[in-house]
Amino acid sequence: MNEEPLVNPDVVNMISDWKGYVEAKMGFRNHWYPVRFSKELDEGQLEVVELLGERLILKRIEGKTYAMRDRCLHRGVPLSRKPDCYTKDTITCWYHGYTYRFQTGELVNILAVPDSRLIGRRKIVTYPVQEAKGLIFVFLGDEDQVHDLKKDVPPGFLDDNLMVLGKHRIVNSNWRLGAENGFDALHIFIHKDTTLRHYRTFNFPIGHTPLPGAVEVIEDEDGPKGVTDDFAQHTPVWDGVIDGEVVVSGPRSTQVKGTSASVGTSIWLPGVLKVESFPTVGMTQFEWYVPLDGERHLYVQTIGKPCDSEQERIDFANEFEAIWKPHGLDGFNGDDIWAREVTEPFYADDFGWVDEMLCEPDETILQWRRLASRHGRGIQQKTDLR
Amino acid sequence: MNEEPLVNPDVVNMISDWKGYVEAKMGFRNHWYPVRFSKELDEGQLEVVELLGERLILKRIEGKTYAMRDRCLHRGVPLSRKPDCYTKDTITCWYHGYTYRFQTGELVNILAVPDSRLIGRRKIVTYPVQEAKGLIFVFLGDEDQVHDLKKDVPPGFLDDNLMVLGKHRIVNSNWRLGAENGFDALHIFIHKDTTLRHYRTFNFPIGHTPLPGAVEVIEDEDGPKGVTDDFAQHTPVWDGVIDGEVVVSGPRSTQVKGTSASVGTSIWLPGVLKVESFPTVGMTQFEWYVPLDGERHLYVQTIGKPCDSEQERIDFANEFEAIWKPHGLDGFNGDDIWAREVTEPFYADDFGWVDEMLCEPDETILQWRRLASRHGRGIQQKTDLR
Amino acid sequence: MNEEPLVNPDVVNMISDWKGYVEAKMGFRNHWYPVRFSKELDEGQLEVVELLGERLILKRIEGKTYAMRDRCLHRGVPLSRKPDCYTKDTITCWYHGYTYRFQTGELVNILAVPDSRLIGRRKIVTYPVQEAKGLIFVFLGDEDQVHDLKKDVPPGFLDDNLMVLGKHRIVNSNWRLGAENGFDALHIFIHKDTTLRHYRTFNFPIGHTPLPGAVEVIEDEDGPKGVTDDFAQHTPVWDGVIDGEVVVSGPRSTQVKGTSASVGTSIWLPGVLKVESFPTVGMTQFEWYVPLDGERHLYVQTIGKPCDSEQERIDFANEFEAIWKPHGLDGFNGDDIWAREVTEPFYADDFGWVDEMLCEPDETILQWRRLASRHGRGIQQKTDLR
Repeated sequence: MNEEPLVNPDVVNMISDWKGYVEAKMGFRNHWYPVRFSKELDEGQLEVVELLGERLILKRIEGKTYAMRDRCLHRGVPLSRKPDCYTKDTITCWYHGYTYRFQTGELVNILAVPDSRLIGRRKIVTYPVQEAKGLIFVFLGDEDQVHDLKKDVPPGFLDDNLMVLGKHRIVNSNWRLGAENGFDALHIFIHKDTTLRHYRTFNFPIGHTPLPGAVEVIEDEDGPKGVTDDFAQHTPVWDGVIDGEVVVSGPRSTQVKGTSASVGTSIWLPGVLKVESFPTVGMTQFEWYVPLDGERHLYVQTIGKPCDSEQERIDFANEFEAIWKPHGLDGFNGDDIWAREVTEPFYADDFGWVDEMLCEPDETILQWRRLASRHGRGIQQKTDLR
Repeated sequence: MNEEPLVNPDVVNMISDWKGYVEAKMGFRNHWYPVRFSKELDEGQLEVVELLGERLILKRIEGKTYAMRDRCLHRGVPLSRKPDCYTKDTITCWYHGYTYRFQTGELVNILAVPDSRLIGRRKIVTYPVQEAKGLIFVFLGDEDQVHDLKKDVPPGFLDDNLMVLGKHRIVNSNWRLGAENGFDALHIFIHKDTTLRHYRTFNFPIGHTPLPGAVEVIEDEDGPKGVTDDFAQHTPVWDGVIDGEVVVSGPRSTQVKGTSASVGTSIWLPGVLKVESFPTVGMTQFEWYVPLDGERHLYVQTIGKPCDSEQERIDFANEFEAIWKPHGLDGFNGDDIWAREVTEPFYADDFGWVDEMLCEPDETILQWRRLASRHGRGIQQKTDLR
Repeated sequence: MNEEPLVNPDVVNMISDWKGYVEAKMGFRNHWYPVRFSKELDEGQLEVVELLGERLILKRIEGKTYAMRDRCLHRGVPLSRKPDCYTKDTITCWYHGYTYRFQTGELVNILAVPDSRLIGRRKIVTYPVQEAKGLIFVFLGDEDQVHDLKKDVPPGFLDDNLMVLGKHRIVNSNWRLGAENGFDALHIFIHKDTTLRHYRTFNFPIGHTPLPGAVEVIEDEDGPKGVTDDFAQHTPVWDGVIDGEVVVSGPRSTQVKGTSASVGTSIWLPGVLKVESFPTVGMTQFEWYVPLDGERHLYVQTIGKPCDSEQERIDFANEFEAIWKPHGLDGFNGDDIWAREVTEPFYADDFGWVDEMLCEPDETILQWRRLASRHGRGIQQKTDLR
């Protein structure tokens, strides 16, 4: 018996130019992922997070956050199950006293075996951490692969005057179903009844499909890698017809131009969507589909707005709490979450990737799959969890 | 990794002349199965049913019932999770607007991609449906294999004057344990305490075993395939003896002839039992063990009585509700359900089929296994579910 | 498909001189295991127990206890689900009347098939049972392998004047994690806060490591096989130091000599620990880690005290109930149970045995693993369960 592979090789072999994407069931290694908001981790606080199948302890020490594997080297128990932090820099295993320094992962002592030759010679895995725009990002990967954070977030996200607010929730589907649902221009069909429409003048076709030129693949060496879809170059469909009869229509505004609720979307490695002019004009939604393991992802939802004064920041914060969080991130995106979770069973045994029947506009999704396969910096494997 | 086989090949290889039966863990394909009573499906109503591991939508349109696979071709989601029926003949996928016609399975539109080349060229799987005796039967199989319904029901079931009443329930055992429990002449031992005995003059040995000639194998080309067991040619056992002492006796009636509660049973493909003169003289119990998947079956229990006038029909209906349903289908058969569910773990990993230790009267069960292996029209495989 | 192996062969192949221990995930066959206290089984009473993955029925008949496999030969159902005991010596299967004698396992009748040729020619598996010190021991193994009970219990346990009291509970970890937790001299670190310390003058270092000569391997041909660890030859560690500062200290008594709470421990096949002078001077704790299956063990906890008069027995019984059971077996050992259950996931897929990072004092545990591999009388396999 070898360990059962993460992804069915029979399926991988049937895929042509996006094998890597199918293999990345637990996500792409060697990328930056947001795991919590900065305000969720106080000085001295411990927090356990999952990421690409690994369990990590976050700790904030003198303002800076560190991430360490939550598993003692000795007998493999979670350090966090009964955290013994005798000094602010270290954590001691509750079972036999193995003691690790957060900053380096070094085994600095075994309390009852102070002369063990393991001391100072063994390290627990640690990962680089960086905070930006109120999010804690962890680089889940190998030390010699660390890239600049700006290559793993959508253009504009790090803009100085952008204020970012958001929330996160666990979704019971693979992360790729999150990414594809978000980038998919046709899925607007599920949002027909959103309460969000009451808070803006809404252009809401039942679908829209890209004209030639709408989709662009971005793979500049020094920047993030992504696929952009410009809704201005889409053909909207306002009426659904069955057997010659119009059976359903999208709400169409005479006040708003364009073909959709947004002016365009883009999807970026390692799995983050940018929705322009959404949930309303002047704002941008950025959302991550962070793999927790092969079956679940952390849906990190944020809305960014350029704010150039304290008053603008206060106004945005109030508006966010009153309108955009309940009607956008909760209500509107709640439908997306439901759709992903209902789609999960078809892809759970991997055969969905070959049994699905895509239609013409899904070409944009295929572009994303190919780009991810070309530029993903590594595929998280079961052996990475050992 | 290939997909794990449905049945352990090591087990199949140890079986001689009834391999097919062991392989048919999810049932025999290309047969008619009852899935609901006709009165459970009103005009225009949708109902989701499981059958041989597949999930189907039933819909009644202008009186006629159709059965369609409950999985969108596009992204594999269940259409029934949020059924969008814009016209009475079609169902539209809630996710991206793929629209199918119930009568044919044809993809008649994709609402937001009205010019897709897939339209009119793709079909979702549909199955023939036929109603008889108040039951909705689905032919779960390939179009070119459809046989006459009369070849898949016991003789007499379709008789013009037979009135059929019943109920159905889910049982947590493989369907074959249901079929074998029902046909097994020895299992009468578990019914010693049934309340049914108060409602008829009961002949109830603790067991009875067939004499030569009791069992007959029926395999006429144009009729149903089955094994019959004539209880008139059985040796009843009235007393159970241990170490020379009678320890248990069956209730014996001086008023009723014959060896058992019934005058005979027969089992027919694809898994339906006929119990003559049961639950009382003048009635016949027909019951199906319909595979839902490899671990559960739908127990469709019916009682038929010839009725030649409206008054006879009313009387039978009243008697059924007052006596035969509570004391027969619920009480008496409740013991059978319990026995099947307790037997399931031994057969769940397939090894039960080789580790069991049958005794002489179980030869009737072996006849059934061999017949089913010879005449089953196809074995439902995991690949049939994709 | 062959059946999935019990233990990953890739892991077994990476182990050098204690492969057998890794293979014995469900325990060592052909040994005596305690399953219940004698007082838990009254005359005529049935009790179902699990042992090394098998389910057994215990029955006490005229004072003597018998153990029989709880699975009918015919259709594999548990006899105990509806026990029909028509005579005191036999059990009859509720389904078809197969009747077995407890003393021999012989199939003595099939009630409805009294002339079956199987009768008198087939046997259900039975195992030898012996009672000692108030415990019911079952020899789980093959008849020609039965050894003297005294070879499977620690020295002293069968002493005439030893009075033994105890309890048992199910622990959700593999039995080996129980055995290793108990024998592990370093794990004292988890007991820092035990309430037991209030009931004795306690010497309680945070750990202690063996000097050369502390550990001895016992493998006399006619006696039990074990590893002993003499705490008098240990170096205690009283203070835990991190970055040059003492951060935690063990409670040290000036009244009590020695390095630990006990004066020494020893671990014996098939998985039983002896803790001397524990939970207090003059007592000995004996505890078994009895495999129920690969994921759970029965933790049989006993305390023995030499008692030479009825008054001493009464006093010990009272003291046991008032102090040693609540503060020792419940409180102190409750921490051990918690530790084992938290360790289980790391070893559950077998890779823990190669991924663990032992330190120098764990050499005592390695001695135990090697001894068990050399002297275990058989490895319980999945095929033994069929």
